Amino acid sequence: MMEGAPTYLPNPVEPLAGTAAWQAFAEAARRADRSGGTLRVLEAAGLSVDLSTQAQSPELLAAGSALLAARDFDACRERLLEGGIANCTENRAAWHTALRAEEPPGRVAGRIVAERDRVRAFVRHLDAEGRFHSVVHIGIGGSDWGPKLVVSALGYAGTRRQLRFVSNIDGHAIEAGLIGLDPQHTLVVVSSKSFTTTETMHNAQCALQWLREAGIADPWSHVVAVTANPEAAQRMGVAPDRIFTFWDWAGGRYSVWSAIGLPIALALGAEALDGLLQGAAAMDEHFAQAPLEHNAPVQLALTGLANRNVFGYPSVNIAPYDARLLHLVSYLQQLEMESLGKSVDLEGRPVTLPTGPIVWGMPGTDGQHTFFQWLHQGPEGAPVDFIICREADHPYPEHHRLLVANCLAQREALLRGKPASALEAEVAAKESDPARAAWLARHKAHPGGRPSSLIVLPRLTAHAMGALLALYEHKVFVQGVVWGINPFDQWGVEYGKVLATGIAKELSGDAAGEGHDPSTAYWVGQWRGRK
Amino acid sequence: MMEGAPTYLPNPVEPLAGTAAWQAFAEAARRADRSGGTLRVLEAAGLSVDLSTQAQSPELLAAGSALLAARDFDACRERLLEGGIANCTENRAAWHTALRAEEPPGRVAGRIVAERDRVRAFVRHLDAEGRFHSVVHIGIGGSDWGPKLVVSALGYAGTRRQLRFVSNIDGHAIEAGLIGLDPQHTLVVVSSKSFTTTETMHNAQCALQWLREAGIADPWSHVVAVTANPEAAQRMGVAPDRIFTFWDWAGGRYSVWSAIGLPIALALGAEALDGLLQGAAAMDEHFAQAPLEHNAPVQLALTGLANRNVFGYPSVNIAPYDARLLHLVSYLQQLEMESLGKSVDLEGRPVTLPTGPIVWGMPGTDGQHTFFQWLHQGPEGAPVDFIICREADHPYPEHHRLLVANCLAQREALLRGKPASALEAEVAAKESDPARAAWLARHKAHPGGRPSSLIVLPRLTAHAMGALLALYEHKVFVQGVVWGINPFDQWGVEYGKVLATGIAKELSGDAAGEGHDPSTAYWVGQWRGRK
Repeated sequence: MMEGAPTYLPNPVEPLAGTAAWQAFAEAARRADRSGGTLRVLEAAGLSVDLSTQAQSPELLAAGSALLAARDFDACRERLLEGGIANCTENRAAWHTALRAEEPPGRVAGRIVAERDRVRAFVRHLDAEGRFHSVVHIGIGGSDWGPKLVVSALGYAGTRRQLRFVSNIDGHAIEAGLIGLDPQHTLVVVSSKSFTTTETMHNAQCALQWLREAGIADPWSHVVAVTANPEAAQRMGVAPDRIFTFWDWAGGRYSVWSAIGLPIALALGAEALDGLLQGAAAMDEHFAQAPLEHNAPVQLALTGLANRNVFGYPSVNIAPYDARLLHLVSYLQQLEMESLGKSVDLEGRPVTLPTGPIVWGMPGTDGQHTFFQWLHQGPEGAPVDFIICREADHPYPEHHRLLVANCLAQREALLRGKPASALEAEVAAKESDPARAAWLARHKAHPGGRPSSLIVLPRLTAHAMGALLALYEHKVFVQGVVWGINPFDQWGVEYGKVLATGIAKELSGDAAGEGHDPSTAYWVGQWRGRK
Repeated sequence: MMEGAPTYLPNPVEPLAGTAAWQAFAEAARRADRSGGTLRVLEAAGLSVDLSTQAQSPELLAAGSALLAARDFDACRERLLEGGIANCTENRAAWHTALRAEEPPGRVAGRIVAERDRVRAFVRHLDAEGRFHSVVHIGIGGSDWGPKLVVSALGYAGTRRQLRFVSNIDGHAIEAGLIGLDPQHTLVVVSSKSFTTTETMHNAQCALQWLREAGIADPWSHVVAVTANPEAAQRMGVAPDRIFTFWDWAGGRYSVWSAIGLPIALALGAEALDGLLQGAAAMDEHFAQAPLEHNAPVQLALTGLANRNVFGYPSVNIAPYDARLLHLVSYLQQLEMESLGKSVDLEGRPVTLPTGPIVWGMPGTDGQHTFFQWLHQGPEGAPVDFIICREADHPYPEHHRLLVANCLAQREALLRGKPASALEAEVAAKESDPARAAWLARHKAHPGGRPSSLIVLPRLTAHAMGALLALYEHKVFVQGVVWGINPFDQWGVEYGKVLATGIAKELSGDAAGEGHDPSTAYWVGQWRGRK
């Protein structure tokens, strides 16, 4: 610990850009091979992570390890995995790894195991009872993306019960979420860490009203709560045996491993939840044990740092070549951007290098017909994370062959490019005017030299999904350590909420509304006038 | 025309960065007010476009008009709207405005009106017949996003028939698209401009097989094609009276206005299609006639150019505060990134300034719980396009008030920010240690000064949707003119297709596969071994 460092800082953090370790890393990255000349595949928890077309060299590998040492990585990782105060601005642990450990650590084992058992017993009870055919899940952000991702991915061709996810405060969302369901046979799951989330609380009230209007005598028997604030759920009216809890040391965007995973078990069975946790735990084990140079989350993180801060890419594109992973991009947007979208380091100083990139994307091959033009021929490009399964679960082998071929071809095209000179003959075959042929060839040229990662899952099982999500979680953590920021808080979500509460009052005529900029004042006036 | 300019160039294009008009524009942008000090709302085709918190000044407004004049904007717009060769590398028009004109221009009026009538007669016929309860729409990219966006937005609470959209070559997509439907009552719509798109053709074959396996004697009676290549559809087996056509001068990402809109009419009635076209035509009229300084697409485009090339934002975030506009982001990703992701100008020279930004986003308020942290507190931020309706179509007025409040509050928070100094007292109320309070305040600070646009629709009607999409189309066009690039080609989509065809052969063992980088070679070997 640096002399005089305040006790609320977990570790001292030098401004990154000025450190010798960073400068050596950046230099090594600039000198590294970026031509894809050497095969480089890391194996982790059943996943293969191919970094061949990213910058690589023995020098860069060594510089990466030295950089981590300089940022006190071992101690940070230990603090994370042992439940120390990894989230210093909120003065608590970020102990999502405990939630998925087969044998959770002693300090929290009792609570975790008891809640796991309660969730599973509840699902068994509902299965035996057979009363609920549909589930409306109400939650937003971290209470929504995880269950939605896993249920839609593993249940793409059908689930045990019909699941609908309602997140948005837009009333069309709850309207569409309830329409056509039979209230007698519908269970409402209300998930909110704080149990004060505006969107969730208002949508829950709509669902309750809907149950009441259907003449259901005891609507609360249709309601389940998942929360870290069970008192609030109970005050609202949820029966204690229908409240499932998690804890303040599990961040919202890291909470799918807790009782927040309940809808997964309702849709796919408790085995799916078990598999998910086991896959994540296997990745935790890899992250904790594998040597740095073979450690997949660590190397994925260092690769991202080089792309962001040495090669200047402002974004990373996520391209799951699997239509079932529709919500993976949104899930990773929250995980990465809410964690790494920070401007001050742990000590509260402005960061000296750009932090988390924009995360965007969509399943390939849809992306090929949407924005791959930009990835190939735009002046800047973006590193791409290609994600694909070795084996498919459908009966169309030719489809899977074409999917794989497209995935590999796009990576290769991004890497190799095609210069205008190589296109002239091809174009000239169709163009008699040589000047026009040369001109067209310039329009058709691909610059190439664009990096990507390839993550190969054996098959889209719950285990592989768990491992994949944990891979990204730990990648984000490592980047947070190097940037010296806190990836576990989200103060930027608070301020807008405060302003929204004030404006909502103004819109209903309860407050005067002063101090707005002219545009906000204008629109408050426009809406206030209507009702 | 510049002396000696080749005849295949529609207009001469100076490299943008070096022009006096650009430099004057950039200088004016840097000097402009960015504090949101003046209300600035443009009205266009029923939409309000609020640019108050973007850079603005009378000087900038004048410099923008001068920039357009220097880029020959009037002639370019005229060429576009009159069906001239706006797409010079493919030597054809980009005449999507003709498709939606109430009275299409003479040269193409006959074909357009005849096809409109055929689509409407077909929908009437199906409605009267009552045979098809479900529609599986097979198409990708430009054949998919438009219908999917409009059907899900306007039919969020139910449609006349069940519609499913299958785009991806991933076999899980077609599997999930067909599962549970009754083949006897299912219509298959195959949409592909070229009618050679790999994904679409393979998925169509699966659907046909599924019809045959259900014992349907004449599966072709269940199939409709929408294409600019009717011969190919007929060769495949589609009955001529079930083939709806559009034309090579309608680009894929501009084709929702053509017979590609058929699923919209099947789901929502022909009135929805009519409304969509009318709204777009109203925006066309505005774009053609409104003075530049009040021209919404023009000013939105100039704002984007300042954000991209003067203020250095690499991306633009799309935040529809309307859960029904779920697919708007994907639609705009294709429209903007496929159009503007270009590295060479019309003359084939490298561009001198970055072109189209990354387009990303999701509906608010979901985005607030996903990546708004990054928008507020990340070091770089992104300009945001907020989109919202004055009136909702659901019975939850308090929800709409909260939605509006959140939208306005997020804009205001981005603009105003909150410095650490303003937070210290607030934090100190909960923190007894003054050093820790000051440190926490720095973590909670918001830099502010971040621009956004606000687009207000009266209500989410087909008309408003048409106007909104046309607003973005013309914005993209104007930016293409200023950058001096061709927004209507997409050569970057071709090269990957060629490579994929080769790799697919290798995977099935038909070809040896040489010349790959080590990673591609490795994975081809891995998959070739399996089958």
